[in-house]
Amino acid sequence: MGEVDAPTETAPGWLSPDTLELVRAHVPLVYIDAVPVRVDAVGRVTEIGMLLRVAADGTISRMVVSGRVLFGERVRDALMRHLEKDLGPLALPRLPADPTPFTIVEYFPDPDRSGFHDPRHHAVSLAYVVPVDGDCQPTQEALDLAWFSCAEADSPAVREQMTGGHDRLIRLALAHCGELP
Amino acid sequence: MGEVDAPTETAPGWLSPDTLELVRAHVPLVYIDAVPVRVDAVGRVTEIGMLLRVAADGTISRMVVSGRVLFGERVRDALMRHLEKDLGPLALPRLPADPTPFTIVEYFPDPDRSGFHDPRHHAVSLAYVVPVDGDCQPTQEALDLAWFSCAEADSPAVREQMTGGHDRLIRLALAHCGELP
Amino acid sequence: MGEVDAPTETAPGWLSPDTLELVRAHVPLVYIDAVPVRVDAVGRVTEIGMLLRVAADGTISRMVVSGRVLFGERVRDALMRHLEKDLGPLALPRLPADPTPFTIVEYFPDPDRSGFHDPRHHAVSLAYVVPVDGDCQPTQEALDLAWFSCAEADSPAVREQMTGGHDRLIRLALAHCGELP
Amino acid sequence: MGEVDAPTETAPGWLSPDTLELVRAHVPLVYIDAVPVRVDAVGRVTEIGMLLRVAADGTISRMVVSGRVLFGERVRDALMRHLEKDLGPLALPRLPADPTPFTIVEYFPDPDRSGFHDPRHHAVSLAYVVPVDGDCQPTQEALDLAWFSCAEADSPAVREQMTGGHDRLIRLALAHCGELP
Repeated sequence: MGEVDAPTETAPGWLSPDTLELVRAHVPLVYIDAVPVRVDAVGRVTEIGMLLRVAADGTISRMVVSGRVLFGERVRDALMRHLEKDLGPLALPRLPADPTPFTIVEYFPDPDRSGFHDPRHHAVSLAYVVPVDGDCQPTQEALDLAWFSCAEADSPAVREQMTGGHDRLIRLALAHCGELP
Repeated sequence: MGEVDAPTETAPGWLSPDTLELVRAHVPLVYIDAVPVRVDAVGRVTEIGMLLRVAADGTISRMVVSGRVLFGERVRDALMRHLEKDLGPLALPRLPADPTPFTIVEYFPDPDRSGFHDPRHHAVSLAYVVPVDGDCQPTQEALDLAWFSCAEADSPAVREQMTGGHDRLIRLALAHCGELP
Repeated sequence: MGEVDAPTETAPGWLSPDTLELVRAHVPLVYIDAVPVRVDAVGRVTEIGMLLRVAADGTISRMVVSGRVLFGERVRDALMRHLEKDLGPLALPRLPADPTPFTIVEYFPDPDRSGFHDPRHHAVSLAYVVPVDGDCQPTQEALDLAWFSCAEADSPAVREQMTGGHDRLIRLALAHCGELP
Repeated sequence: MGEVDAPTETAPGWLSPDTLELVRAHVPLVYIDAVPVRVDAVGRVTEIGMLLRVAADGTISRMVVSGRVLFGERVRDALMRHLEKDLGPLALPRLPADPTPFTIVEYFPDPDRSGFHDPRHHAVSLAYVVPVDGDCQPTQEALDLAWFSCAEADSPAVREQMTGGHDRLIRLALAHCGELP
């Protein structure tokens, strides 16, 4: 999520802290959100994967895969990069053939602006549901990755572990797949 | 495509020729169309699969996977049944997590009604793009299965091998995946 | 919803009770569901319209506009016919430019098959959200038409007035429009 | 399209030329593309509107409505702002109830990167089809607004008047509406 995971400050697309601050103060950033799912033999969603990590607001929260699209990067490549970074190199994400997000999420510093909140910036995020077939090993900043049934993912117990509107994003993803209880 | 491939006339969902004629004269049928595709590591469509078979109008044509949804059958199950029937048991179709078709195709006995034509009946078809990972062996009535690049699939040479509007369906599928040239 | 509203038994597309029963026993029917909404100046959904009427299961329920696609009828024409029949001739429905439903709803006589239930038949329904600009006057079989805010439409009080899965359909429609609470 | 149409350099969201250059060199910008259409009584697209204006590459070209999403601005508000700026205050655009774009367009300074090209920057654009009901009067930088039938809009004569991939965007929009010839 943060620039702290840049391999070096001079890698293409990565910004110095000063430049990032300047950019964040002036334009919305392009983000992606990817909801990892397990599917059955006929493609129906059976489980939703959620990371446990330090959210943008400083709380330890359940979250989906989320991150910035870099300068010069295709959206598909950004999706794959963030999925592999967060779920590990053996997750085998299956990006949809259709490049259109199932919804767009508008994150604002003001929590009341859209219901989606990021204290750091205004971001317009393209949201995807991504089946993963392989073995997921949360890497880097994530403390844990857990899988929830569709009913659990929309339960109060799980929803209250999410911040910034990610619980609502999960509901939109479930609805998109026809699996909202 | 036809009732000729019913294992027996008494299998659930299958109709006697008389009943099928009666139904066809009175209501639109529910159909599915599935466009088989090969995708690369980031999910982009690289090739379109098309069967060579006897079309509803009697011509030998390039076609996508197409067929009826049976009484009591889920749409996902109908998709999987027709894909396995036409591409063989090792095709490994990956049905999308999202149950919504990318377009609907309205086939009419009158070729001018919608641009999609089936001389046998009025059918409303739910159309899907389906990545297939495995080994495809066209079975039953198909004479051949060939894979075309996105540019080839929309070329005049291939388009003129299709009837009933299937060339247009291919274009809609390519556009949906952002790959229409 | 029923064939009782056929002007005469010989109108094109309408079926005699015997033929309808025969068809219903053998094939899924093609249906449409239309969720009427009011939108604000920038197109956001502000209210959901729901009819009060006798549902297929005999209860008096809150419902969306729903009905059969007739033989020879385009889906757009079926949508408009049912919207005008249920909301009156001055409702001014605005059908979307995109013919793709936001979801498909599979109604089965068995209530546990998909979560969507119609005791009369198996139907595959194409579901649309339709902004209506004009004056709605529920006609024919509807007892009432009421408008609910997005939060009200998803509240327990309203949900328990719905049967057959229509409460879930409302939630899918709200999610599709980004307005699910 | 350009910052030249900023009312003043200090309006919220507008950037000084230096800041804009800095941003463009480091992150993709969030854009919207809106394809204005005329629809008939049942919502089918009958005509596509295209502006004649100086494109980003300096040529006088046929274009759709396109522009940046400002810091703090909702996507719907950006769409409405650009539509009113380009089509005039009486155009009465009807934004869809669904906030999801029909496709995303990735513009790169390198014309071969995605097939969509903008020499000034990398932009990720959310593309919408927007019916307009009212009287369109192209304003500001546009030289002309013309309406084309679906067949004309996809004809070689019109396509060669477009640059940067806008001809392909038109084809994707037509396909999305089921009207690609």
